[in-house]
Amino acid sequence: MSYPISIGIVLFPGVTQLDFTGPYEVFTRFPHINLYLMSESLEPIRSDRGLTFLPDTTFVQGPNLDVLFVPGGPGINAKLEDKDFLQFLKTQGEQASYVTSVCTGALLLAAAGLLEGYRATTHWLFLDLLAMFGVEVVKKRIVIDGNRITGGGVTAGIDFGLAIAAELFGETLAQEIQLQIEYNPQPPFNSGSPDTAPADVLKRVQAASRDMQETRRQIVQRVISGESTGDTSGKLR
Amino acid sequence: MSYPISIGIVLFPGVTQLDFTGPYEVFTRFPHINLYLMSESLEPIRSDRGLTFLPDTTFVQGPNLDVLFVPGGPGINAKLEDKDFLQFLKTQGEQASYVTSVCTGALLLAAAGLLEGYRATTHWLFLDLLAMFGVEVVKKRIVIDGNRITGGGVTAGIDFGLAIAAELFGETLAQEIQLQIEYNPQPPFNSGSPDTAPADVLKRVQAASRDMQETRRQIVQRVISGESTGDTSGKLR
Repeated sequence: MSYPISIGIVLFPGVTQLDFTGPYEVFTRFPHINLYLMSESLEPIRSDRGLTFLPDTTFVQGPNLDVLFVPGGPGINAKLEDKDFLQFLKTQGEQASYVTSVCTGALLLAAAGLLEGYRATTHWLFLDLLAMFGVEVVKKRIVIDGNRITGGGVTAGIDFGLAIAAELFGETLAQEIQLQIEYNPQPPFNSGSPDTAPADVLKRVQAASRDMQETRRQIVQRVISGESTGDTSGKLR
Repeated sequence: MSYPISIGIVLFPGVTQLDFTGPYEVFTRFPHINLYLMSESLEPIRSDRGLTFLPDTTFVQGPNLDVLFVPGGPGINAKLEDKDFLQFLKTQGEQASYVTSVCTGALLLAAAGLLEGYRATTHWLFLDLLAMFGVEVVKKRIVIDGNRITGGGVTAGIDFGLAIAAELFGETLAQEIQLQIEYNPQPPFNSGSPDTAPADVLKRVQAASRDMQETRRQIVQRVISGESTGDTSGKLR
């Protein structure tokens, strides 16, 4: 890996914006990098909850990446069965120095065959789906296994960004960035993990997520069995 | 205040995107709201570090807001002396149920005369500038004083968003959102505050910020003395 380091953020409609805007705020404070917001086209991209932003290059036109970074969100459902998209991840991931994700972006990496046999994590609601891909799932906020670096749900992206900072540029720069962005978190409640949330809160969030979990489970089963319409060969995992 | 609650995020070129994308991820999980990304025009807005996104209404066309929310960033420098912009904040803020900010957005609220005599906070590097406006500056991550709710630098926006959630919809919803976005922060270092950062890290960040601090101090002095080119009357504070 040589300087400037090329970092690509992989975007798609229905991405959860904080999955990548957290890391983006950290990445853009790195020295000697070229950062790419990559998408299928240069059209504006609408996140799952409405924020619309502009990519700066396409999957086809972008360069080979040193760091491949994939955020998650409801939009992964379509991408889990998008053969061209998964092939893009696979091609980039196989030559990248780092293959990384936040939230359910890990499911996309796994569907592209980039996490099999690795330790990795994802949003707490979808850990079991990640395991279906032959990933050694770890319930931690950030999991580093060789050159695979994966983060938990949504806000884990900030911790993830700082971990990447330390990995690429050392602890001092990571600490400087942490101070610049005043990352001295003080959540007003202690409800950020299924292990600490009040029981009724956990139950309500689980109930509200059940349909999405079931839909995704079916998609993952199709992907694994090679029955996805986008991948009838069963080889693109 | 009646439902749906109207929340306006005030955008401008050079905004620090995480100042508002953190709260945005929380706000968009509220029930019964109308959320507006407001800007001077409908042109795409470029954040300080490049991310470019689309507003959905203009200052002139947007509705009266129940919650006025102002993020910060390098772009505030121009806005601190933009008479029309400050008049927009003043008009909205005087009729809003809540007047809120994250990071250096507090300086804009103060320049519009909306924080005088209130307790409030801002990014740790600019606390003294906030005090110049007659604000009772408090070194806390979130400060609630009546209907003024202000947050510290950048990442404080997530804590801030959850505080707003609790204020508007109660603790249970705030806890549900915290669990959805897995806000269980685990910074890899303890460098997020000037009180905890290693001395050399603090020194480097302070040195790198000195020019911006001095530039802003001069701007604030002009605003306070009424010498801003955008406000020769000295009345619009």
